[in-house]
Amino acid sequence: MVPGVLCGLCPGQAATDRSAGRGLRRSMSAQRGRRRGAPPQRSGRGVPPQRGERGTRSSGRGGGGQQQRAGAANRSASGRQPEQQPQAGRSQSRPRGLGGDHLEGRQAVRELLRAGNRKVYEVLICEDAHSAATLAEIVDLARDRRVPVRELTRRKLDEAALTAAPQGVIAKAAAVQPVPLEELARPAGNTPPLVVATDGVTDPGNLGAILRTAEVAGATGIVLTRHRSANLTPAAAKAAAGAIEYLPIALVGGLPAALAKLRDAGLWAVGLDGHAPDGLESLRVADEPLVLVLGAEGRGLSALVERRCDQVVSIPVLGRIESLNVAAAAAVALFDISRARTRNSA
Amino acid sequence: MVPGVLCGLCPGQAATDRSAGRGLRRSMSAQRGRRRGAPPQRSGRGVPPQRGERGTRSSGRGGGGQQQRAGAANRSASGRQPEQQPQAGRSQSRPRGLGGDHLEGRQAVRELLRAGNRKVYEVLICEDAHSAATLAEIVDLARDRRVPVRELTRRKLDEAALTAAPQGVIAKAAAVQPVPLEELARPAGNTPPLVVATDGVTDPGNLGAILRTAEVAGATGIVLTRHRSANLTPAAAKAAAGAIEYLPIALVGGLPAALAKLRDAGLWAVGLDGHAPDGLESLRVADEPLVLVLGAEGRGLSALVERRCDQVVSIPVLGRIESLNVAAAAAVALFDISRARTRNSA
Repeated sequence: MVPGVLCGLCPGQAATDRSAGRGLRRSMSAQRGRRRGAPPQRSGRGVPPQRGERGTRSSGRGGGGQQQRAGAANRSASGRQPEQQPQAGRSQSRPRGLGGDHLEGRQAVRELLRAGNRKVYEVLICEDAHSAATLAEIVDLARDRRVPVRELTRRKLDEAALTAAPQGVIAKAAAVQPVPLEELARPAGNTPPLVVATDGVTDPGNLGAILRTAEVAGATGIVLTRHRSANLTPAAAKAAAGAIEYLPIALVGGLPAALAKLRDAGLWAVGLDGHAPDGLESLRVADEPLVLVLGAEGRGLSALVERRCDQVVSIPVLGRIESLNVAAAAAVALFDISRARTRNSA
Repeated sequence: MVPGVLCGLCPGQAATDRSAGRGLRRSMSAQRGRRRGAPPQRSGRGVPPQRGERGTRSSGRGGGGQQQRAGAANRSASGRQPEQQPQAGRSQSRPRGLGGDHLEGRQAVRELLRAGNRKVYEVLICEDAHSAATLAEIVDLARDRRVPVRELTRRKLDEAALTAAPQGVIAKAAAVQPVPLEELARPAGNTPPLVVATDGVTDPGNLGAILRTAEVAGATGIVLTRHRSANLTPAAAKAAAGAIEYLPIALVGGLPAALAKLRDAGLWAVGLDGHAPDGLESLRVADEPLVLVLGAEGRGLSALVERRCDQVVSIPVLGRIESLNVAAAAAVALFDISRARTRNSA
């Protein structure tokens, strides 16, 4: 985890993939061991949402529904989804894109070159770091891809760096392009979608750690919000260790509206919050299409996001300090879900 | 690891702990689903250690055994264990103490005052941060404990800070005192020991995250090495979020010798390494006394430490990047172990 706080993000929204949603609903209604159409329990808060209510539920939910409708109105007015518009990254302030155009750290730069998914403008490498195997591999990959490699003294490289420890290498690349939200609702091969959404995770190290863990655990997509969240800053991208090259990332204006859309498309929304009375072991939809929603550091899930979740679960705390770091909680939950999927598909 | 470095348990104290060791062995021999006395599998490397061999096993292990004997000889010569000697912390260079005398971050400082386990000299607080509930609680706790509270401007506080984001509060306290290694081998109440040892984790953020997760997951102790590891720097202590106030921490010269001692005292040594062919699900001693050994970032477990492990397991990787961050891997493994213990004690 890289200490140090950078921050922020901003607004936009989504559409639904109706055909994908219908397909997912069919697969969900066949779930073993659960009464057809019965939802997971809702931590004792309010009436559990009924599966059939998905399309209209927001209108019956007071403030949440109003916000969601406002979001839909904005989408209609603009005529297209903002997250489909390429954003230029660091040079823009509002609305920002995903970033990811300045990369530091050996794993992050190696995966950028291995994946080959975006234009790489230049690799800067420390002239006295050639003995490291990963740096040698980076130089080979860059030459294979005709990316200019510039050798710098350690002092010059450190001056060009934006994190405390660039590990001898920096790359300049095109910013990561967000995908439309509805793409995340589609199954990836035989795998039902496993989407991770962050509700205001502001520490770049935490965001990067979450992305890395999500990729390793087999997540199929990420939802980030433009406001009140970190984006792919150099520190976040370094901590992600290359995960941003492989994970489709949607950038949305408001998480409650995005969750409503994903639920309409057939995903369960499962919140993770240290204060939820239900433990992770009570999650019964791990092997179904789902979006795991992570709360902000300290504050947890916002009230509106929590209301949009079908179930909110916590990680059991056995010690005396109050809660896990959000990235650690995400790791525990994601591998729990991942294991349930592997077990049930075996 | 330097051969013959001073480390481990003194013979006299090990003898006083024999009854605990026998008790642990009895509980281990009764493990469900495993042939009595049969060891966990060793990832296909070499002959699996036999449980009954523990007292003499090191002598049959070539270099490792010789190192352990050299360590024992040094201990006899010195007449006491180096890790029992209090270390002064940051003012000393070699051998270092645990540190932890300069704390930043709201959770870290709050738990320091809540726990009341060590002398707190002073709390520095940002004069414009009184609206935050945690800071107000910190001021109240400090006054209850007659700790001087000094208000500083944000600029002055940031100048006094040693991390990028002190969150409006700094505390100066006596350094964290290490405990003798053998204390970690004792059961804590009804709980068999669950010790976490780090084999060269050098990033303070990772170390702090591991400590926080370990405390929340119910770990009963930590083993850190004096060399080639982070100690409780301000960044590590901040990421630990107060875990260092509650977790007993032993500081050892060499991890291989410390593992040998813990095994002699009845703990299984379980390594976590991304390259191990055995998955975490093959771990069958989760609810027995054990020490979980975490490898360094990138490098993983050292060869000698790996040889001292009864079993080495990995977290299954489903994505395209190579491995989890060590703190995320620790979270997954620790909660897996924690869950197995809760399930089996229910």
